[in-house]
Amino acid sequence: MPPTIDPAATAWLLVSTALVLLMTPALAIFYGGMVRSTGVLNMLMMSFISIPLVTVVWLLLGYSLAFGDDAGGGLIGDLSHAGMAGIDPNTVHETAHGGVPELLFATFQLTFAVLTVALVSGAIADRAKFAGWMVFVPLWTLVVYVPIAHWVWGPDGWLMSFGALDYAGGLVVEVASGSSALALALVLGPRVGFKIDAMRPHNLPFVLLGAGLLWFGWFGFNAGSALAADGIAAAVFLNTLVAGCLGMLGWLAVEQVRDGRPTTFGAASGVVAGLVAITPSCGSVNTLGAVVVGTAAGVVCSFAVGWKHKAGYDDSLDVVGVHFMGGVVGTVLIGLLAAEVMTGGVEGLFFGGGPAQLGKQIVAVLAVAAYAFGVTYALGTGVAKVVGFRVSREDETSGIDFALHAETAYAEGVHGHSPRRLDES
Amino acid sequence: MPPTIDPAATAWLLVSTALVLLMTPALAIFYGGMVRSTGVLNMLMMSFISIPLVTVVWLLLGYSLAFGDDAGGGLIGDLSHAGMAGIDPNTVHETAHGGVPELLFATFQLTFAVLTVALVSGAIADRAKFAGWMVFVPLWTLVVYVPIAHWVWGPDGWLMSFGALDYAGGLVVEVASGSSALALALVLGPRVGFKIDAMRPHNLPFVLLGAGLLWFGWFGFNAGSALAADGIAAAVFLNTLVAGCLGMLGWLAVEQVRDGRPTTFGAASGVVAGLVAITPSCGSVNTLGAVVVGTAAGVVCSFAVGWKHKAGYDDSLDVVGVHFMGGVVGTVLIGLLAAEVMTGGVEGLFFGGGPAQLGKQIVAVLAVAAYAFGVTYALGTGVAKVVGFRVSREDETSGIDFALHAETAYAEGVHGHSPRRLDES
Amino acid sequence: MPPTIDPAATAWLLVSTALVLLMTPALAIFYGGMVRSTGVLNMLMMSFISIPLVTVVWLLLGYSLAFGDDAGGGLIGDLSHAGMAGIDPNTVHETAHGGVPELLFATFQLTFAVLTVALVSGAIADRAKFAGWMVFVPLWTLVVYVPIAHWVWGPDGWLMSFGALDYAGGLVVEVASGSSALALALVLGPRVGFKIDAMRPHNLPFVLLGAGLLWFGWFGFNAGSALAADGIAAAVFLNTLVAGCLGMLGWLAVEQVRDGRPTTFGAASGVVAGLVAITPSCGSVNTLGAVVVGTAAGVVCSFAVGWKHKAGYDDSLDVVGVHFMGGVVGTVLIGLLAAEVMTGGVEGLFFGGGPAQLGKQIVAVLAVAAYAFGVTYALGTGVAKVVGFRVSREDETSGIDFALHAETAYAEGVHGHSPRRLDES
Repeated sequence: MPPTIDPAATAWLLVSTALVLLMTPALAIFYGGMVRSTGVLNMLMMSFISIPLVTVVWLLLGYSLAFGDDAGGGLIGDLSHAGMAGIDPNTVHETAHGGVPELLFATFQLTFAVLTVALVSGAIADRAKFAGWMVFVPLWTLVVYVPIAHWVWGPDGWLMSFGALDYAGGLVVEVASGSSALALALVLGPRVGFKIDAMRPHNLPFVLLGAGLLWFGWFGFNAGSALAADGIAAAVFLNTLVAGCLGMLGWLAVEQVRDGRPTTFGAASGVVAGLVAITPSCGSVNTLGAVVVGTAAGVVCSFAVGWKHKAGYDDSLDVVGVHFMGGVVGTVLIGLLAAEVMTGGVEGLFFGGGPAQLGKQIVAVLAVAAYAFGVTYALGTGVAKVVGFRVSREDETSGIDFALHAETAYAEGVHGHSPRRLDES
Repeated sequence: MPPTIDPAATAWLLVSTALVLLMTPALAIFYGGMVRSTGVLNMLMMSFISIPLVTVVWLLLGYSLAFGDDAGGGLIGDLSHAGMAGIDPNTVHETAHGGVPELLFATFQLTFAVLTVALVSGAIADRAKFAGWMVFVPLWTLVVYVPIAHWVWGPDGWLMSFGALDYAGGLVVEVASGSSALALALVLGPRVGFKIDAMRPHNLPFVLLGAGLLWFGWFGFNAGSALAADGIAAAVFLNTLVAGCLGMLGWLAVEQVRDGRPTTFGAASGVVAGLVAITPSCGSVNTLGAVVVGTAAGVVCSFAVGWKHKAGYDDSLDVVGVHFMGGVVGTVLIGLLAAEVMTGGVEGLFFGGGPAQLGKQIVAVLAVAAYAFGVTYALGTGVAKVVGFRVSREDETSGIDFALHAETAYAEGVHGHSPRRLDES
Repeated sequence: MPPTIDPAATAWLLVSTALVLLMTPALAIFYGGMVRSTGVLNMLMMSFISIPLVTVVWLLLGYSLAFGDDAGGGLIGDLSHAGMAGIDPNTVHETAHGGVPELLFATFQLTFAVLTVALVSGAIADRAKFAGWMVFVPLWTLVVYVPIAHWVWGPDGWLMSFGALDYAGGLVVEVASGSSALALALVLGPRVGFKIDAMRPHNLPFVLLGAGLLWFGWFGFNAGSALAADGIAAAVFLNTLVAGCLGMLGWLAVEQVRDGRPTTFGAASGVVAGLVAITPSCGSVNTLGAVVVGTAAGVVCSFAVGWKHKAGYDDSLDVVGVHFMGGVVGTVLIGLLAAEVMTGGVEGLFFGGGPAQLGKQIVAVLAVAAYAFGVTYALGTGVAKVVGFRVSREDETSGIDFALHAETAYAEGVHGHSPRRLDES
């Protein structure tokens, strides 16, 4: 008997899909608040434009290549569903306990792809040419996101067959975006004034609002990945709350000890670090495990964001420090903390499961990081050569928003400076 | 056997109703960011006050007149449910596949009525007297929204009987609000400085945030209209995503070609244009149809917003250009693009269905537009005469917020000007 | 037969839990917009930090003490579920019509505890030491929130046994936070400049945005408390909409009559007052009852916020005037307006139920108010002595954000003043 649609699972997945889509505008506000007021619009645009660009690519090719039947070796899917061929409102995607509409499953997965590339944009704030970004986004989705999604989640994907666990995207979303962010930061080079000017966030309330909306959406991201409204979804939900909490506490504790005071920027960053780390592990660890994952991420990432100053790469909004490192922490900790009550079988080293799972998680991180970094570096270099990926020094210093979009974020001389007017251009 | 409540459909409809209600505060932020900083509070208030005013009218009379049994000719419902008479928590509203609580169905529909009148306020930004608006809102809901809702969605409504299709409000919400916006813009006349001053949006991040929240809510608007958590809801959801995407791309493409650069304001406007156009058609077209609808709306509306400068009406925030034109595009395209897999029967001209449906869609647009424009023009004129609908020239130029509400949006001299203080008034 | 999980109820409760969690960031924006620009970050932080602090306490002790089996006298629960012992993803929490995952029920209740303490922070805006707040939050949750939650909602809680009704937190959330707010306002004393400076909200659009998001979340708060997706949830949802509406209209009507003009700040405050009052009563009154509850709250609270100026306590953001008074109004009105169609039995005085229920509601209010006020006063005094609860006069006047967090909300001299820079500290 073919699977039928489970209406309650479908209701929860409809909501979850909307929640994950909301994360991209939320990220736009989160990132937009962090940059200077002369670059906020270009920052917002890099997130917003990712929605249509990825959507088009996903429906034409991406969904089929990622989730279609394996084309060989677990490396990529076939093109049997290119252009969503063979999928109509009645097509059922089979899940562990029933089914959901295939169109909905494809849309849910689409919202992950959108967010992932948008995350990368944080590394190149205040200097990326919008035209370069528009070319980069669809290509990156096809050559980086889609293959990795197939490896980890696709039918017969090689990392899935290998036994690596990634519940909601620690590898596919976080390690992939973080590695790619490093590559792009290197390709574009640092902002004018990097390590000299303070470059403080122009609007911290926006950063906090964005963090709040991201957290809200993350429940759909993680608990929606259960594809059911059941006890596992509930446990995943609680893990998502707990890890965000402990990420915040961990980060603020470091700030208190190291700097003498906790900051709101640290609170927002810590929440996100915890959420990043629980993304792969939310379906594998119990509540205590989520405490460990969140705390570890908050502490580790609060140090990792400082590396850029030592190493000299300008990962402007700390995609490497938060998403790459958080993703690594959460993915690797599965090997230590996986609990049978969640996984239904696999156990981590601390729960008597031996070191095998830990090894698999590390291999998966290395494979995804190496692939994403290498391909993105090549792709970014190509875009920079062919289309151009960095604005002129003059446009960067005078204000990227006006240069690229003929707009300023705030009219009427807000923020104490007098923006150029449209009619003066 | 009487229908019983479908719990999963009810869960999804509860969420959808909350999502649609959120759209009115989202619209407030969207519109509020577009006006000058001296008028943002009055703009926010016109949206917010629509929530209670429409709620009261809806519960007393509106729901019964719109969705009660037809009182004759398909023109209006009867008063059998006035004051929600005969409806308690156990009353079931029958749907295609089961039932939902009647109270919930009535509340879901109420949130549509709230948003529709709030949309109209964009045409009269920065100059509308708040007292006039408070009188206009309940009257407009009763004499414009409610009859049109009955024609299109009510039992035996004449446009429904005629065969016109409008899944989630292209006629009832978009064409009605857009036509009414034109009427009010004519009644109130242009702002002081129209076509002379730039009148740039005072806060574009608010506009983008508002657009993001509107998109999020729109999934409840459209996919909630399925009244079920099933494959059709999933297809409607995807159509809503796709059309918003293509609306954005279409609008930005025009800007790139015409003006040489894509703007964030264009991105936000394009998303909304695409969402407007898919509102009537989301339940009739397949994914490819949604691509066409969204693209057409983005392109057409990006030109339509320029008409006001030629014709001289000051539709300040482009309700005509986006909502009227987007609504027309989406409603008419059903006649070309309706697909049997979605409609269960009706097919558009391009799918072998002949020209009949196209004719019905055009007739419906003309009927709704003519009725909404005419009645609103008369009503607005009446309000202007009896209550007054426009602030004095002095209040308009010195700042409508302080004049009407004794407040300024930002304290402490934000935006580079020194607002009058409360204690100086 | 043990209860099994109801998937549709679980889907709705998953969403509701996310909605209630969103209310705390929403409150942060709501409160943050109300303060001066030099204190917005500390205000945001007091809300955000409540999320992890309460979460830790709740999982370790709070949930068990509140919802565990009664330890005697209906005063407090036992520690059988401390550290969430005995609860795994398969544990079912029995409801009236089925079951939901116990982990989800515990998480849903957790989000209420988070919001409640965050509400209190509004009384001590612009002068609270962050370290003091971090100590206060977990202790207050344990000694004030948790016992009251047990009295009202816990198994064999004494107020539940007594027959007091509180559907979603009029006593547990609103009266408790409002009474505690008064106590803390007294402990900390008024701000420098109280009753002298205008201290106007620095960003009213944030206040309105926060109010909109709070309203959105409140549907999860109230209708989620039904623990089912059914007709009662629908009625509760509509009551929540109606009371927010009438609260707004009631408050604005008072402003119009008393001050000659309605303000946006009044609109936002009125919505919240109505929502506060319907919180206890949303499951006991019919739609007409919600009209009465909302109107009464809007009118009463619009006067109650003025008391602080006469009595001299600086409840900065009107937690007493809105949450305490709104909570009292809504809780007491149950005694007059309870309708059998909602309660399944209990009827209010106006519905032929006699005065008994009214008496119970009043006793419950007095008990909760006295306990919360007394314990909070003692706790706040203790924190002030041991840790310190108020910043220095110099830090308060120069700007609490920079003093405590080494940050300013807006860089680049926004808001017309030149903030100190990090590198000048």
